[in-house]
Amino acid sequence: MKKLINAPEDVVTDALRGMAAAHPSLRVDVANQIVYRADAPVANKVGLISGGGSGHEPLHGGFVGYGMLDAACPGAVFTSPVPDQMLEATKGVDAGAGVVHIVKNYTGDVMNFQLAAEMAGDEGSKVESVLVNDDVAVEDSLYTAGRRGTGATPIVEKVAGALAESGGDLASVAAVARKANERSRSFGIALTSGTTPAAGTPTFDLGDDEIELGIGIHGEPGRVRRKIGPASELVEIAAAAILDDYPFAAGDEALVFVNGMGGTPLIELYVVFAEIAKILEGRGARVARSLVGDYVTSLDMAGCSITLTKLDDELTKLWDAPVNTPALRWGA
Amino acid sequence: MKKLINAPEDVVTDALRGMAAAHPSLRVDVANQIVYRADAPVANKVGLISGGGSGHEPLHGGFVGYGMLDAACPGAVFTSPVPDQMLEATKGVDAGAGVVHIVKNYTGDVMNFQLAAEMAGDEGSKVESVLVNDDVAVEDSLYTAGRRGTGATPIVEKVAGALAESGGDLASVAAVARKANERSRSFGIALTSGTTPAAGTPTFDLGDDEIELGIGIHGEPGRVRRKIGPASELVEIAAAAILDDYPFAAGDEALVFVNGMGGTPLIELYVVFAEIAKILEGRGARVARSLVGDYVTSLDMAGCSITLTKLDDELTKLWDAPVNTPALRWGA
Repeated sequence: MKKLINAPEDVVTDALRGMAAAHPSLRVDVANQIVYRADAPVANKVGLISGGGSGHEPLHGGFVGYGMLDAACPGAVFTSPVPDQMLEATKGVDAGAGVVHIVKNYTGDVMNFQLAAEMAGDEGSKVESVLVNDDVAVEDSLYTAGRRGTGATPIVEKVAGALAESGGDLASVAAVARKANERSRSFGIALTSGTTPAAGTPTFDLGDDEIELGIGIHGEPGRVRRKIGPASELVEIAAAAILDDYPFAAGDEALVFVNGMGGTPLIELYVVFAEIAKILEGRGARVARSLVGDYVTSLDMAGCSITLTKLDDELTKLWDAPVNTPALRWGA
Repeated sequence: MKKLINAPEDVVTDALRGMAAAHPSLRVDVANQIVYRADAPVANKVGLISGGGSGHEPLHGGFVGYGMLDAACPGAVFTSPVPDQMLEATKGVDAGAGVVHIVKNYTGDVMNFQLAAEMAGDEGSKVESVLVNDDVAVEDSLYTAGRRGTGATPIVEKVAGALAESGGDLASVAAVARKANERSRSFGIALTSGTTPAAGTPTFDLGDDEIELGIGIHGEPGRVRRKIGPASELVEIAAAAILDDYPFAAGDEALVFVNGMGGTPLIELYVVFAEIAKILEGRGARVARSLVGDYVTSLDMAGCSITLTKLDDELTKLWDAPVNTPALRWGA
């Protein structure tokens, strides 16, 4: 294993120290592993927090800031944060208007966020939980009952964060987050496994010419392994999985998100983008907005995921609203 | 080799089609391999173009847009674009106020941009060429006489683009680009080689526990190979190389750029950031601005580079100015 780290047990806190040094717009509680926006809690605003295992950066800490999350709780690599962390973050961002928890559908995250929500409720915070479960690849998985939460997460965080910033109340912010999730579908492709710092060896093995379709962001099994083929063929399969589940028709507007898993160069993500755009245009749907890059990663895994979100006027407006986080920034 | 591509010979044009589909703010001439901002040429504005081999994405196409480049010319992977491409781009962005060529110091790029500048001059365009040569690792290299141009490139493009956008004339824009280059130093570390689509095998070999210090962005030899060590030790070596050449003293303000080479996860880049910040703070210098992520890559190479730019009021103001490109965007 070759990694730019000091020691496997220090990687999360060392990275948090780096975030603190790089981004004065954040306030990083390194000891408790919580990334806050520096001005949290924001008066009268609904708070938004998320969290999950580390190893998916910039998710979630890189999405903390104006117009998006108020705080993020990173766990150890591929390990849920603990309820105490989530409780602390909830209280830290609650300005009295309530807090939305954005929870990716992994059993540990779901259980811990639920406990945290109950504890926060006991201490007087109103909490709404929103589950993200956009991955069409498999029903039930290694760490998940139902569908996994993957690429839709930053999209849910962005639109909910924008509504919270513009004064939306707790119920509205939770509702638009759920709507963004319901209108999003994802599918992942792995060319290689990632390597966790603790294990030091790849999580799973793939042959030199083998890929896995429908991979999870922790290397959970997908649908099938097969020989690699041209990007056009692989994207066709991913698109079919998404569109069979959630069709896009003529006139539909898509936010097309081609996400790198951490080890795949951007030039390849654009090749993938060209293919998915062609498929959508073939159906008469329009690429109305785009996101291309490494946003929901699996350490150094080579591969990508494709997320399609069906936009409407509300979602488009919230997507376009100003945001100022380390990983997504515009209009601010 | 496993890559998300259709065929090695199509990767650049396929990726350009993807950029065109993803970014309506760009106008992409796929046939001639030129990425323009959609509104080029911009009346009364000095034009800025850059270019170089593909495989370093988002460099340069991802830096085309308001407040940065007017056009970029990608060559084949790790291969200079040709003078005709640069000439076409120069004419396409020249609104009569002249054009700045930002040229990374590689012999092919330098020669071809020089030819293009002469041809453009013959056709009535005023051209100023700015050479980027920030890499302190080695003097003369596989493709370079003098120092290589690496991480400083997007910084030079950003500040020069901001001055051009605010009405700076040709001489001023070229001067501030040269100043940004003169105040920047970089050093790269490779953990693995990248693999070009055409070759299909890694450009060079590194042992399972071996790294190369001072690597170039095409895999050109660096200073030394050694066993990997903790990030703190590797960053100390990189920082010493930079700071021995260009000291930062108490009160100096740094733009600290920790750049991923393409295959290294963001969590590791933040570990590196924490270490370089500690070293600068130890000298009394301040991390005034930051950039963390994959901006000047070498396909799927694992590793990073560190660039330090010594800011002054002018550079800070130009860095902070609004920018709207696929890869760097704020305030717009």
